[in-house]
Amino acid sequence: MFAYVRLMGEKMLKGRPLKKLVEMGPWLMTQSFSLFIWGGAWLNLRPMFELLHTDAGSQARRGRLTTSRGTIETPVFMPVGTQGSVKALDPRELLEMGTQIILGNTYHLYIRPGLEVIRAAGGLHRFISWPGPILTDSGGYQVFSLAKIRKIKPHGVEFRSHLDGSLLFLGPKEAMEIQRALGADIAMAFDDCPPHTGTLREVRAAVERTIRWAEACIEQPRLKEQQVFGIVQGGNHAELRAECAKALVAMKFDGYAIGGGSVGEPEAEMMKAVEQTVPFLPADQPRYAMGLGTPAQLVELVARGVDMFDCVLPTRVARNGTAFTARGTVSVKAGFNKADFRPIEEGCDCFACRNFTRAYLRHLLNVNEILGLRMVSVHNSHLYLKLMADIRAHLEAGTFGEFRRGYVANYLPSQKVRAMRGANAVRGLEA
Amino acid sequence: MFAYVRLMGEKMLKGRPLKKLVEMGPWLMTQSFSLFIWGGAWLNLRPMFELLHTDAGSQARRGRLTTSRGTIETPVFMPVGTQGSVKALDPRELLEMGTQIILGNTYHLYIRPGLEVIRAAGGLHRFISWPGPILTDSGGYQVFSLAKIRKIKPHGVEFRSHLDGSLLFLGPKEAMEIQRALGADIAMAFDDCPPHTGTLREVRAAVERTIRWAEACIEQPRLKEQQVFGIVQGGNHAELRAECAKALVAMKFDGYAIGGGSVGEPEAEMMKAVEQTVPFLPADQPRYAMGLGTPAQLVELVARGVDMFDCVLPTRVARNGTAFTARGTVSVKAGFNKADFRPIEEGCDCFACRNFTRAYLRHLLNVNEILGLRMVSVHNSHLYLKLMADIRAHLEAGTFGEFRRGYVANYLPSQKVRAMRGANAVRGLEA
Repeated sequence: MFAYVRLMGEKMLKGRPLKKLVEMGPWLMTQSFSLFIWGGAWLNLRPMFELLHTDAGSQARRGRLTTSRGTIETPVFMPVGTQGSVKALDPRELLEMGTQIILGNTYHLYIRPGLEVIRAAGGLHRFISWPGPILTDSGGYQVFSLAKIRKIKPHGVEFRSHLDGSLLFLGPKEAMEIQRALGADIAMAFDDCPPHTGTLREVRAAVERTIRWAEACIEQPRLKEQQVFGIVQGGNHAELRAECAKALVAMKFDGYAIGGGSVGEPEAEMMKAVEQTVPFLPADQPRYAMGLGTPAQLVELVARGVDMFDCVLPTRVARNGTAFTARGTVSVKAGFNKADFRPIEEGCDCFACRNFTRAYLRHLLNVNEILGLRMVSVHNSHLYLKLMADIRAHLEAGTFGEFRRGYVANYLPSQKVRAMRGANAVRGLEA
Repeated sequence: MFAYVRLMGEKMLKGRPLKKLVEMGPWLMTQSFSLFIWGGAWLNLRPMFELLHTDAGSQARRGRLTTSRGTIETPVFMPVGTQGSVKALDPRELLEMGTQIILGNTYHLYIRPGLEVIRAAGGLHRFISWPGPILTDSGGYQVFSLAKIRKIKPHGVEFRSHLDGSLLFLGPKEAMEIQRALGADIAMAFDDCPPHTGTLREVRAAVERTIRWAEACIEQPRLKEQQVFGIVQGGNHAELRAECAKALVAMKFDGYAIGGGSVGEPEAEMMKAVEQTVPFLPADQPRYAMGLGTPAQLVELVARGVDMFDCVLPTRVARNGTAFTARGTVSVKAGFNKADFRPIEEGCDCFACRNFTRAYLRHLLNVNEILGLRMVSVHNSHLYLKLMADIRAHLEAGTFGEFRRGYVANYLPSQKVRAMRGANAVRGLEA
């Protein structure tokens, strides 16, 4: 476009005196106006999600999601800033480890500090000093997992705050309004997230409600360039997942999330829910698996066609003194690290591994020094982000299949994950 | 010296061919050897503490303390890394805010992680990844303030660990040995720190013990280039302070600390202890007031001739959500900051003030997010370090008196300090 403008400019101005140029004014204005219109149309028609590569041996995709605050290379891991802070980390540390987008949470931020404060600050980005894009969860998950004494009504959920018991109401209208106030680059539809132990009847009711609320969400006003994703529910019932996905896709959301995970379900169910949903989602739009999982699980979910992830595991286990490595988790706090002067993970170039030994971090965790959990949080979050960067590189190079097999074979699942697999473990995960 | 070498070199080599140069070999070697000897003597004779300026209107001094790990511009504030970490901060943050030297603590590090680990790590600097000098406290203060059931013996104190009740022994020999193992650039003599409520008889006994133990400390081996400071005790008894100071000065320590502060004494007593001690300390050696105080108190202590400070206040009050400013403390956590979008302190260029508002930090502290106490710790530590940098600049410019009056007049002491002043408040402090 710039070349065109320059060419036209040179052609027009060649040898023409100033007077001639003034005479050309109206014509120049028409040209500028035309360029403006065409440019605007180009910006608007440009797809928000581009599929750059698809893997030959799996459903994995390498993509690019455009938001008004920057471009996100997918597959992407999004660190979770529940209450307006990725726990223990500052924005500089997040940027240094390659964070492209972070999460915020409607439910938590609505309760504290409240919308008035965030509105007065000029939105969530300015309030928390985060320059990149933010995706906000709608609060559905928290209303159903955290809030006390909830009453489901046609237009939302009446519940009592998990903090002070005050009576609150959150529905599609409220959730979208809050996400507008927060200034979310990507807002999530308000959904009904049933427990994984729900009966078919309960899950069906949740799906019907999720679809009805999604319709209400998509009708709400949205910020300029704000994207809205729908959330597919349906538990482990293939027909409900399909029904929910089809209904949401018909509403033309900007992307689709697979919800209902991270509620204590076995690993096999987690994978099944994704496998049952992905076939009904459009190939040219982003797919987001909410709240999952371990590094090896993320590799498997990428292979099943997921583009976006968020998970509190990296920072949560860090605060208990546990680090993720390419071979599984390791207790940094454990006594066996007392005189181990290697970094948490050899070859890792995170700030913690470049500067500190296991012995030092073990000591810090042992005497409750904040720097200990800070540095394990840095390492764990870096590992998740680096894993995604590696996956992207392997997808581009066409070596994802090999990488996937090697990674999953090397990664020793934690006792918890092994228990989650149980008798019905999907053997393929280990292959 | 370099000019001399260059001159000699040019004179010698002028017009001489390579053969001649080879013939000159033995002479060149003699010259090099001579230079080596003289240089070594110069390095050894060079004073470790240089007095650069003295204030005309007070006893304040601008100095420079040389250690093997770097030069320290005084007056200096030393952030406290009790257990091998300046609470909530990492080494990069410390360097960014201008930290020249940090503290470590013999008592705490001896108990956890223990000497074996720190020795195996290659010393405290390597263990904690701190590139600059470290001063270690001898453990005397902790033995007398933290340890349970202590029994004072001729060669030290038998006590039970405040953690697990195990029986331990710390005396001059042990304290110096531990500080050698830690690799302290500046080690402190092992002293008896009496409570400020001690009777004359008790304080006299503590002073006698401190002197005897100081003698034992100075006889211990020390690391190459390790400096050892004596600690003057004596409570608020002028004659005991004088006696202790004279006795220690006769032993020729590398510097002298004024101990017995920070034990809950009124502010007037804190100042008096310094005033009673300083006249007996050599002008050409550094003076260190241990464990003190608020920013305004530090200005006053500088004016009384103190060069070095350490204090846990900046990080301790930060963890309670309180920030220091040039006008006194402010509760960042308080409700009145709910929608205050200014930084903690206007014009402050610390990482916290450059990036975050009071409203955000208040929210973080309110919801117990670690980033909140981290950032207030950054601000408070930065303020102490910046205050010292300002004092140094004013001492160089000859404007310290004016600065002192303005600073102390602007600084509203906290309720606690006002209570400390009580009926016997030294009015001069406010002037």
